[in-house]
Amino acid sequence: MRVLVIGAGAIGSFYGSLLAKSGCAVSVLARSDYAHIKAHGIDLTSETPLGRWHFSPAAVLRDAAELADPPDVVLLCVKVLPGLDRAALLRPTLGADTTIVLLSNGVEIEDEIAAAFPGHELIGGLAFICVTRTAPGRIWHQAYGHLALGNYPGGLSPTTQALAKAFASVGIACEATADIVTARWRKCLWNAAFNPLSVLSGGLSTVAMLDSQEPFIRAIMTEVCGIAHALGHPLDAQLIGQQIASTHRMPPYKTSMLLDFEAGRPMETEAILGNTVRAGRRAGVPIPHLESVYALMKLREMAPT
Amino acid sequence: MRVLVIGAGAIGSFYGSLLAKSGCAVSVLARSDYAHIKAHGIDLTSETPLGRWHFSPAAVLRDAAELADPPDVVLLCVKVLPGLDRAALLRPTLGADTTIVLLSNGVEIEDEIAAAFPGHELIGGLAFICVTRTAPGRIWHQAYGHLALGNYPGGLSPTTQALAKAFASVGIACEATADIVTARWRKCLWNAAFNPLSVLSGGLSTVAMLDSQEPFIRAIMTEVCGIAHALGHPLDAQLIGQQIASTHRMPPYKTSMLLDFEAGRPMETEAILGNTVRAGRRAGVPIPHLESVYALMKLREMAPT
Repeated sequence: MRVLVIGAGAIGSFYGSLLAKSGCAVSVLARSDYAHIKAHGIDLTSETPLGRWHFSPAAVLRDAAELADPPDVVLLCVKVLPGLDRAALLRPTLGADTTIVLLSNGVEIEDEIAAAFPGHELIGGLAFICVTRTAPGRIWHQAYGHLALGNYPGGLSPTTQALAKAFASVGIACEATADIVTARWRKCLWNAAFNPLSVLSGGLSTVAMLDSQEPFIRAIMTEVCGIAHALGHPLDAQLIGQQIASTHRMPPYKTSMLLDFEAGRPMETEAILGNTVRAGRRAGVPIPHLESVYALMKLREMAPT
Repeated sequence: MRVLVIGAGAIGSFYGSLLAKSGCAVSVLARSDYAHIKAHGIDLTSETPLGRWHFSPAAVLRDAAELADPPDVVLLCVKVLPGLDRAALLRPTLGADTTIVLLSNGVEIEDEIAAAFPGHELIGGLAFICVTRTAPGRIWHQAYGHLALGNYPGGLSPTTQALAKAFASVGIACEATADIVTARWRKCLWNAAFNPLSVLSGGLSTVAMLDSQEPFIRAIMTEVCGIAHALGHPLDAQLIGQQIASTHRMPPYKTSMLLDFEAGRPMETEAILGNTVRAGRRAGVPIPHLESVYALMKLREMAPT
């Protein structure tokens, strides 16, 4: 399978390098880190049994025009941000039969791409991982790493199953699901609560927030459940309790949004929280806690950090 | 009238000095600024027609034990903070007939003092003012200055009327109200929204918050109205619109809570927001926006600034 990874950040480098390890021909389209990766490839270090490995992409591209042949699969590994035109990034990389994989946080992030490329197979992906780009071409994998992949808006194609198998062959647990939309809502349950609260609190860890304001966190999660239910993607009634319990067991942890905020990078407020709120409004579900957190995040983004 | 002001901060110095100007014998119980005020008195500068004036207290005390005679009126001008025992501050200053005036922000801040001193006349007071202590014994009055005074839990005594008259005689508009509790809710409508949002937003001005998130601010204010109504202190239906409109007309303005936060001082979160939320819970009124803002403020207070 010929794979093109767009975005040589932590997520793209990590999962792209593992697809290469599994036998795929993986090229990388890099922006800011192009020169380093072209010269030196990517070095990865994991705190898990994956250990250390080096990734020499089949090709390192600065521009999609350099592509010799269109890939079988393009793996879009960029954050979903209001100013970033994902369709424009994808368009020049696609052959007639290229499958698009969106490996991104958030809910309802596929619609725009499905509308732009109706003739292409579209796979949604979720990464459950702590991984950081520490320097150009240097990736530090701290914990976790499992994936969920599924066709959008639903179903499970041979390509999705092949990708899941490829990841599994190199030690990455990958759930191939026929209902990626529900999987997104399940992950959003955690993200919509802990990500913005970590920023608005001024940098508290997940455990500190939970110890102090568990009822508030549960109220947010309950509203997310209500939206998912109203949109036909009901979540398991036990899920909130399970996520609270597993967060209590996690070591104190800085969310991805907090890391972005502290580094002065744009945050995925819209993909995670804005899309959730808009879905709730559309569904006519009362979501006053989510509306409050979203309004405060929009204010927080306006102020200097 | 012999008056003792407890607290030589901005509020105590400003209103105490004006009562002295009106002819009262005003002493000051000062803590951190005792030495400076004992030696030099208090210098005040106003941007209003009040101009500049000097205040030499009748006595400057470090300890209530130094009081020769109990005052007719004690004016408690300290912030209402969880760690501060206001009853303990008041107790040694009270003679049998001393009237207590609480000049403080917040709602439901009188009950504790009423319970501690059931035999004393108790007056609630609200100051609508921008005033700052720039150094020990140096007060800068930027704008506004009017007061509301009224007996707690209701009514209008001769002492309250005499105080209002004294303030009026030196150019301070002072509403003597028979319903100070409603006046507190009216002020809280603004404070419960703008004060915490200014902190959680990372320091935005009132106008910037309003321009971006007016519906959210209105939702908070609507909940405060609901609480006041449920507790028998209904606010005028026009009040939210009036406060929004007047805030639009104000110059961009940092709230008192934001100034405290930026200076690393404790904030009046409990007096303004916590007491509002507890009143709402007691009244059984749904207040999800207020609950969200309160939970986030409690988190924000836990994190290093």
